[in-house]
Amino acid sequence: MPDNLILIKNALILNPDNDFTDEKRDILIKNDKIAEISEEIIHENADKIIDAAGKILLPGLVNTHTHLSMTLFRGLADDLSLDEWLNDNIWPVEANLNGDYCYIGALLGAIELIKSGTTTFSDMYFYMEDVARAVDESGLRAVLSYGMIDFGDEERRKSEIEENLKLLQNCNNAADGRINVFFGPHSPYTASEELLKEVRKLADECNIGIHIHVSETQKEIEDVTSQKGLRPFEYLDSIGFLGPDVVCAHSVWLNDNEIEIIKKNNVKISHNPCSNMKLASGIAPVSKLLENDICVAIGTDGASSNNNLDLIEELKTASLLQKVSTLDPKAVTSDEALKMGTINGAQALALDDEIGTIEVGKKADLILIDTNNANMVPDSSNLSSNIIYSANGSNVDTTICNGQILMENRKLITLDEEEIYEKAREAIKELKNAL
Amino acid sequence: MPDNLILIKNALILNPDNDFTDEKRDILIKNDKIAEISEEIIHENADKIIDAAGKILLPGLVNTHTHLSMTLFRGLADDLSLDEWLNDNIWPVEANLNGDYCYIGALLGAIELIKSGTTTFSDMYFYMEDVARAVDESGLRAVLSYGMIDFGDEERRKSEIEENLKLLQNCNNAADGRINVFFGPHSPYTASEELLKEVRKLADECNIGIHIHVSETQKEIEDVTSQKGLRPFEYLDSIGFLGPDVVCAHSVWLNDNEIEIIKKNNVKISHNPCSNMKLASGIAPVSKLLENDICVAIGTDGASSNNNLDLIEELKTASLLQKVSTLDPKAVTSDEALKMGTINGAQALALDDEIGTIEVGKKADLILIDTNNANMVPDSSNLSSNIIYSANGSNVDTTICNGQILMENRKLITLDEEEIYEKAREAIKELKNAL
Repeated sequence: MPDNLILIKNALILNPDNDFTDEKRDILIKNDKIAEISEEIIHENADKIIDAAGKILLPGLVNTHTHLSMTLFRGLADDLSLDEWLNDNIWPVEANLNGDYCYIGALLGAIELIKSGTTTFSDMYFYMEDVARAVDESGLRAVLSYGMIDFGDEERRKSEIEENLKLLQNCNNAADGRINVFFGPHSPYTASEELLKEVRKLADECNIGIHIHVSETQKEIEDVTSQKGLRPFEYLDSIGFLGPDVVCAHSVWLNDNEIEIIKKNNVKISHNPCSNMKLASGIAPVSKLLENDICVAIGTDGASSNNNLDLIEELKTASLLQKVSTLDPKAVTSDEALKMGTINGAQALALDDEIGTIEVGKKADLILIDTNNANMVPDSSNLSSNIIYSANGSNVDTTICNGQILMENRKLITLDEEEIYEKAREAIKELKNAL
Repeated sequence: MPDNLILIKNALILNPDNDFTDEKRDILIKNDKIAEISEEIIHENADKIIDAAGKILLPGLVNTHTHLSMTLFRGLADDLSLDEWLNDNIWPVEANLNGDYCYIGALLGAIELIKSGTTTFSDMYFYMEDVARAVDESGLRAVLSYGMIDFGDEERRKSEIEENLKLLQNCNNAADGRINVFFGPHSPYTASEELLKEVRKLADECNIGIHIHVSETQKEIEDVTSQKGLRPFEYLDSIGFLGPDVVCAHSVWLNDNEIEIIKKNNVKISHNPCSNMKLASGIAPVSKLLENDICVAIGTDGASSNNNLDLIEELKTASLLQKVSTLDPKAVTSDEALKMGTINGAQALALDDEIGTIEVGKKADLILIDTNNANMVPDSSNLSSNIIYSANGSNVDTTICNGQILMENRKLITLDEEEIYEKAREAIKELKNAL
């Protein structure tokens, strides 16, 4: 098969660490990879030429914590505490979920991710093979984990682990290598010590990562402390669960000892500011984590507690929330926020050899942002400021993942918007009627 | 002249207090006003028919505190304290401003306002007659005030007051009545007691409102307290400055006595969360103000400290910031946020007889939001949640002010985007070169 060549001309490249400000570059994509970056590339056999003049080229954004199928539950219940929201509203609807609903929800979320510039997401939920189907069709890159909950029940523990292992067997490295599988023990308050220990053992054996919620609410801290006599990170450390392959979502309530534990174990943190604010969970000490050289990435959480999947909005919120909560306007600069949304996310998902920056040899996961929009004019000389503080997902013009164009000039290529919107509306109507 | 008639069909109306959920309505606009709202209006002579099926019709949003010309300074300086940002970056550029630059900056800001659904804004800056020109051409509604600063200098005081009076004489009720003029003493730390007292007297005589920054930073509290022996609101109360016609921007640092003072005087508050977060000024006690039945409206501040003018983003931030700072997920619900962005803004600007709700007899200041977008599907049964938590300004499809269509299907009608972007880029380049 001949190579598929995409040539991007005149791009202003914004890499998280390394900004060719004001110097335009041409980028050649050969199949799934970035093959060349230079001042001028002329290639007569390019299958596709994209003129990026007036646009900023960024690495595709990385959303390290979401529950994509829950996009179906957007706006289902708002202005409630995590407990009321989860127990009284989300869990009853989830009781009637099936694979088809999760597939539709994931497709709906995939559209939103593509349209707002995210090319890689890390998901934890149920019916994950159906989510994998949606990933395959959408062209996105994903890390998928099955959310294991045993509440100490041995039978359930076995079947939950079985389910995650089945996902690993069936989907790891699927969709042309765009899908990786992680283990997904839900949290230290829903997964037993036995489950967590078993997961740690399996993760070492299989050499795959772990995705878990830790220290989201004060109530969780109280519950874990009263059960285990230790705070969540202390407890997880005490049972040997933590390591550089563990991505912890939320991690809002941390004392200094826990920050030490996170650092010592090189644990990765997925910060979810909009969800933490909306559910009034609290403010994660992100500045302090970054000062300790801990890898902090970003996540939107599910659309049902956010209520969207716009990672640019999430990064602005992350930056602004740290500034105001520390009363330090220099906290989480736009450059740092950009790293959280790209290379830090790649590191958290152990994909930093492949994605997170624009470099020759890396996967062609790229987005173009059109600065010729009212909210981005005049173009600041600081490109990251213009992206993080002024833009939102609607300014993303083109999304490319694994060398495939998923959206061009805001028109989706891989998915049929209208059809999926209609099916999503039908699905939530059925789920509500079943209550 | 024959009447100009616009008929909007099949709209789902979202009024701040009164939600006709799931019942579609037709709305007839006659010249500048809403003439009829009913289940079905058939009018053969309508000059224009808009099909609003699948869209939500809202009152135009009201931005109660901005400096529109400063849109030119978007991204000029970021990640700095208010002091460094203002003294070292903004003031030096402002030294070379002139009326033409302010006109271009205001036009640029006007485009952004129209494209994100704001139909009324309250502005305080310099060269305000040039801002008035931009308002006139854009078709927007505005309350304009000249930012008076005397630092205790008597000469300067006189000329500053003269300038605001000239604005009043030349622009009040201009642009078909779409422009009102307020007095704009800059703040209690830049305007002397004499200036503030003179403004109070003139405001009573002329029966026009006052727009002022109060209690934005801790430093301001310290400075005013050390000079006057009183905190800012206590000081303003002691000199008889406060009243129901005073709109105070920011009002971040308030003790209980000051909240009492605000309530007693029926002062209006313009909350600016993104700017307060970005400059690390602090978190205003909005929930507490609302509990005290104080009118809290919303503002973006200038784009140079935000860095955009998206009022929907601002309202989401306002809601989420209160939830997390009070640890109460029920704080500032989406319904309350919607009020802040519409009727509360109208009240703050003394325009609530004319705008802020969709009612027969009020001005036709209306926006349509298209819910057939990835970030708003599935359409929640709670319309305000879908707008406040899921949407952003890019979901605004149509903007109407004073019965004139300013944008339809995201295409601007009154202003030439490309020309204004080009002029804005040129203007900031010249201003930077002059440094």
